[in-house]
Amino acid sequence: MGQLQVLLVAGTHGNELNGIWLFEQWNKSPFLINTYGIQTYKVIGNPKAKNAGKRYIHQDLNRSFQKEALLSVNSSNFELNRANELLNLYGEEGENSCQIALDFHTTTASMGSCLVVYGRRPADLALASLIQNHLGLPIYLHESDNKQTGFLVESWPCGIVVEIGPIGQGLLNSRIISQTRLILETLMEQIHKVKKLNLFFPEKLIVHRHIKSIDFPRDEEGKIDGYVHPRRQSNDWQPLKRNDELFCKFNGEIVRFHEEEQYFPVFINEAAYAEKNIAMSFTKRELWNFEKEWQQSLVHLVHQK
Amino acid sequence: MGQLQVLLVAGTHGNELNGIWLFEQWNKSPFLINTYGIQTYKVIGNPKAKNAGKRYIHQDLNRSFQKEALLSVNSSNFELNRANELLNLYGEEGENSCQIALDFHTTTASMGSCLVVYGRRPADLALASLIQNHLGLPIYLHESDNKQTGFLVESWPCGIVVEIGPIGQGLLNSRIISQTRLILETLMEQIHKVKKLNLFFPEKLIVHRHIKSIDFPRDEEGKIDGYVHPRRQSNDWQPLKRNDELFCKFNGEIVRFHEEEQYFPVFINEAAYAEKNIAMSFTKRELWNFEKEWQQSLVHLVHQK
Repeated sequence: MGQLQVLLVAGTHGNELNGIWLFEQWNKSPFLINTYGIQTYKVIGNPKAKNAGKRYIHQDLNRSFQKEALLSVNSSNFELNRANELLNLYGEEGENSCQIALDFHTTTASMGSCLVVYGRRPADLALASLIQNHLGLPIYLHESDNKQTGFLVESWPCGIVVEIGPIGQGLLNSRIISQTRLILETLMEQIHKVKKLNLFFPEKLIVHRHIKSIDFPRDEEGKIDGYVHPRRQSNDWQPLKRNDELFCKFNGEIVRFHEEEQYFPVFINEAAYAEKNIAMSFTKRELWNFEKEWQQSLVHLVHQK
Repeated sequence: MGQLQVLLVAGTHGNELNGIWLFEQWNKSPFLINTYGIQTYKVIGNPKAKNAGKRYIHQDLNRSFQKEALLSVNSSNFELNRANELLNLYGEEGENSCQIALDFHTTTASMGSCLVVYGRRPADLALASLIQNHLGLPIYLHESDNKQTGFLVESWPCGIVVEIGPIGQGLLNSRIISQTRLILETLMEQIHKVKKLNLFFPEKLIVHRHIKSIDFPRDEEGKIDGYVHPRRQSNDWQPLKRNDELFCKFNGEIVRFHEEEQYFPVFINEAAYAEKNIAMSFTKRELWNFEKEWQQSLVHLVHQK
């Protein structure tokens, strides 16, 4: 029986520096972060993009973990090769088999600290519940979005993305580094408790369930024709109701929200998403019951080794 | 006798988008901004870098207006060619001779809105005084810095940089766009008043005079080894005194300010300056008398045509 191993990734996007710097600091001071004796592997997701000061070289590494794409690796595409390499090194069947992947990101949106889970995998939901229960962080459930797939953590049996913002691309900030460190330590602490069967799962969790993303207003030529309205800017996680302002168009017109539903927008004005035609994403805030099955799944995963 | 012409530049750095978008909005709605009948030319400083989502292609365009470099233009360097092209098109001796250049930038530092003048050219100081008198903006006098030369506005008889922050690279923000627009209109209004000899210059101005820049702490290999201390982050223009915190090093050590002088730091944690080995710059805050000669210089420049 092997040992539980956890993959820690920073710099999956090369211009999100704070996690990278935390890892470097940690390399210099091995006792900086308590991993509770759990074997971890720290990696820089996209070192080449980091050196170039860019999000990616050829394509977004965090959309490159597509099963089909990985079968037919094209050696001229840095990120597809890197995705394959990370799986060979740290994937479930890799040299240093990891069962859990934790991927540390930052965003230019005012998201605070939050967790992102992809789909409804029981072990992910169990781990996210533990963190929400300890730190109160919102959970963004990303699902039902065919345009956005191939996320890194989906290639591990259990995986969570940590997003912290607002912080500009290419910037180091002491607050963001501290927040990253706190969440990383809390994750390790909670995984350790699961390992020790010292279990305390909450009865409920609050989930912000992804519904859809909306684009910026665009002109006839498809060019962005407006910007996020000041009432919406920096108001991630705040309710959006019918007739609320969304965008200011360059001709002075205000674009409003016309639906009857109440949504909670997230990733408002994330700089890297303009190229993906995403000005913000809409979620539904839901109170879910914690399912016993999630706990079993996480316990099983942590103990199967 | 020709007409006064003013060159307006946005996107001298390709990832500073707000000025570019203001210009595009203005192109679509020609009455958006009142130029008081003064002929202006709006240009995107570095369109190629803008399309690439980068600050520059080969080198910083706003350090490329070096007299010697422009004489020996190397066609493989985009920015040197572009500097030459802008001078041929809009320089004092160019096709559309402009006397004043206004260059709109943004910064990731919490500078608010401010003006930057390079050296002590009388016309620059006169125009900056008018704006400070109307909008209260700080003036950063950049001088005595041999490592930083070749700024765009220095190649025009009168020229001012407008810096607005904090805003991440590659981000549009309604507040930054509004601030840019307000300063642009105030500049045009004040130039118009000089043209009409409707003169009201202040008696005093406050200048933040550049003294020096300091680098991040670095390790033996020259890699950045710490980040801006939370007490310094976002505190541009605030006094720095002996023993105040400057940086947190990765080994936990705090780097403090040890000089006797009182400085006012600016450009604290500007993302683009890390590559220039600048973590922040120190200025002295000084109250200057407005010199009659500055007024004469600006009036002469505006009326010589």
